[in-house]
Amino acid sequence: MKNEHLRNSTVFPLGQKADAANFIGDAYLQMVFTDPEPLNTAIGNVTFAPGARNNWHSHNVGQVLLVTGGEGWYQEEGKPAQLLKSGDVINIPPQVKHWHGATKDSWFVHLALTPGETVWLEAVDEEAYSKLQG
Amino acid sequence: MKNEHLRNSTVFPLGQKADAANFIGDAYLQMVFTDPEPLNTAIGNVTFAPGARNNWHSHNVGQVLLVTGGEGWYQEEGKPAQLLKSGDVINIPPQVKHWHGATKDSWFVHLALTPGETVWLEAVDEEAYSKLQG
Repeated sequence: MKNEHLRNSTVFPLGQKADAANFIGDAYLQMVFTDPEPLNTAIGNVTFAPGARNNWHSHNVGQVLLVTGGEGWYQEEGKPAQLLKSGDVINIPPQVKHWHGATKDSWFVHLALTPGETVWLEAVDEEAYSKLQG
Repeated sequence: MKNEHLRNSTVFPLGQKADAANFIGDAYLQMVFTDPEPLNTAIGNVTFAPGARNNWHSHNVGQVLLVTGGEGWYQEEGKPAQLLKSGDVINIPPQVKHWHGATKDSWFVHLALTPGETVWLEAVDEEAYSKLQG
């Protein structure tokens, strides 16, 4: 597996196992900023084990991802999945159905800045995920 | 010098030399997020060479620092300087005069989330800085 060192977290703590209802595989969440001021957003550090990803979902205000380690995927409905690497920044528009997660053979870590609510949907199709080439 | 690898940037690009009018020593700034939506804040990646720091300043809305590498200082006027390490998060209140930067012998990197304007003030006293023990 690639980027195995990310299993132990590099910058921010690994945190707790993310809610299994909304993820496939092992994903971990550590909130790093939840104060009400001065930002309009909470910030979480999300770590995905190889093969782990979240279910399809959308955000009512949007979300920004700052990729801090490893290799993963971001896919909006109806578009090809986009390979993400450390240093990539994704601006997810409001109401756009999407998912993100690790590649099959790499750990993956991003900060998630989420200024509103998340609407969780169905799991990513296993066959479609397995065909992605990182 | 400690954390010399941070000279080449680890996650986000090193960027350009920060405005010499507001910094002592070599500091670098790379903006990583400047879209107007969905956040109320721009995000910059700031890298300080050992001994580099910004001048005293304040923010009219406040600022959040996410420390991503190395060792540095954060000091509010009238308070002791606080040693910062990777993973530390600082919420800087509005109108509070402060400075941040590297320790004498370590590179230092943080993300700066700044939802308003910055008011730049005088340089940090050289003798006071030189007495800080990291």
